[in-house]
Amino acid sequence: MSFTASQPDGSNDSLKSAISADGAPALEQQYRIPARCGVAVKVAKDQTIEVQNTHGTQVCDFWAFCQPGLDEFLSMAHTRTSLSSVFPKVGDKIVSNVRRPMFEITEDTSPGVHDTLLSCCDINRYKILGCKEYHDNCTDNLRMALMAIGLQAPSIPDPFNLWMNIPIAPNGSTAFEPTVSKPQDRVRLKALCDVIVVMSACPQDMNPINGVDCDPTELHFKVIN
Amino acid sequence: MSFTASQPDGSNDSLKSAISADGAPALEQQYRIPARCGVAVKVAKDQTIEVQNTHGTQVCDFWAFCQPGLDEFLSMAHTRTSLSSVFPKVGDKIVSNVRRPMFEITEDTSPGVHDTLLSCCDINRYKILGCKEYHDNCTDNLRMALMAIGLQAPSIPDPFNLWMNIPIAPNGSTAFEPTVSKPQDRVRLKALCDVIVVMSACPQDMNPINGVDCDPTELHFKVIN
Repeated sequence: MSFTASQPDGSNDSLKSAISADGAPALEQQYRIPARCGVAVKVAKDQTIEVQNTHGTQVCDFWAFCQPGLDEFLSMAHTRTSLSSVFPKVGDKIVSNVRRPMFEITEDTSPGVHDTLLSCCDINRYKILGCKEYHDNCTDNLRMALMAIGLQAPSIPDPFNLWMNIPIAPNGSTAFEPTVSKPQDRVRLKALCDVIVVMSACPQDMNPINGVDCDPTELHFKVIN
Repeated sequence: MSFTASQPDGSNDSLKSAISADGAPALEQQYRIPARCGVAVKVAKDQTIEVQNTHGTQVCDFWAFCQPGLDEFLSMAHTRTSLSSVFPKVGDKIVSNVRRPMFEITEDTSPGVHDTLLSCCDINRYKILGCKEYHDNCTDNLRMALMAIGLQAPSIPDPFNLWMNIPIAPNGSTAFEPTVSKPQDRVRLKALCDVIVVMSACPQDMNPINGVDCDPTELHFKVIN
């Protein structure tokens, strides 16, 4: 078994997802993340990215890399250590692998149920679940969304899984539950440094994390000053 | 701020910790991990590594990388996803970032309280806690333990924190609590592939995770067939 961080195991329309040649957004413009795909966007320090759960049942795998170079990235383990919590909430700052605050969560219209514990899905996850053919996956969406703006993923950080509902029982066991968000719920994250954000509309359709219908849908986002 | 995975931010005796030129162990021989230091050891498929909490109050940050190449590594996020639990226990298989089972936990004489949630300490962690000077840290111990056997850390994976007691409250908040282990408690992990294991006797002395005396101590380990 081998592993090359930047190399997708298959392909989908994430390769055509660039919102501009280098991922720079038009401010205030609403962009679409197609169902099962990933999109990358540049967000400058002090700008805010708003991610919208358009249909209310969709998980968004969210990563961020610092510029210049992408070796510093948003880290869930460092964020949990910093916050003394597994559930970041409005007012919290989420941090990088060198503990630099990367974003402040400034608004969340949903009940605030997001996951920091689980890895992003990948080709092996779906093989384990029984898939015989290629299945869209968030790891490849991250890789392809960066390729679409001319970059390569230097690593696959563990994602901030917006709206993903992973309850933790007192004995430490976890479960895959449907989102508790509603259509057009939004999370706003203010960037505290210049970053490349990548978002994947998680293509998981073999458990109910994207709703009891197991039907992954689109998301939307915009960058605002 | 910059980040180079392989480069320590200071130094300690981890640089002199090699148990052999390439980290290959003498089987059944007990080796010491000095307090505040890290040691690397090669463990072949089907061999078992036994880590001993010599004085009972010490956390061991535990990493493993697959050979050949170190790009595949033991991943806590993929392990949590695989186990549907944040607390691996005897009989569980803990997995890599490509979901390959790397170890089976075959024995644990302690109450089984280990942490998969928190990042390893690093120079920035101690700066945030108020240190003005260099403080030994597990991230640098990982880097130096690999350097001591002629390797470079390609990344800083999130560690399996043996005996680290991080309870999770129903609201998701976590706490730094003393270990609940006793002197000579041991954990045995059977390798399911050829690996390089790195262990750090965590030098955290600014909270009680290494005992209420905040006095980091040595650990021991051996590799058995």
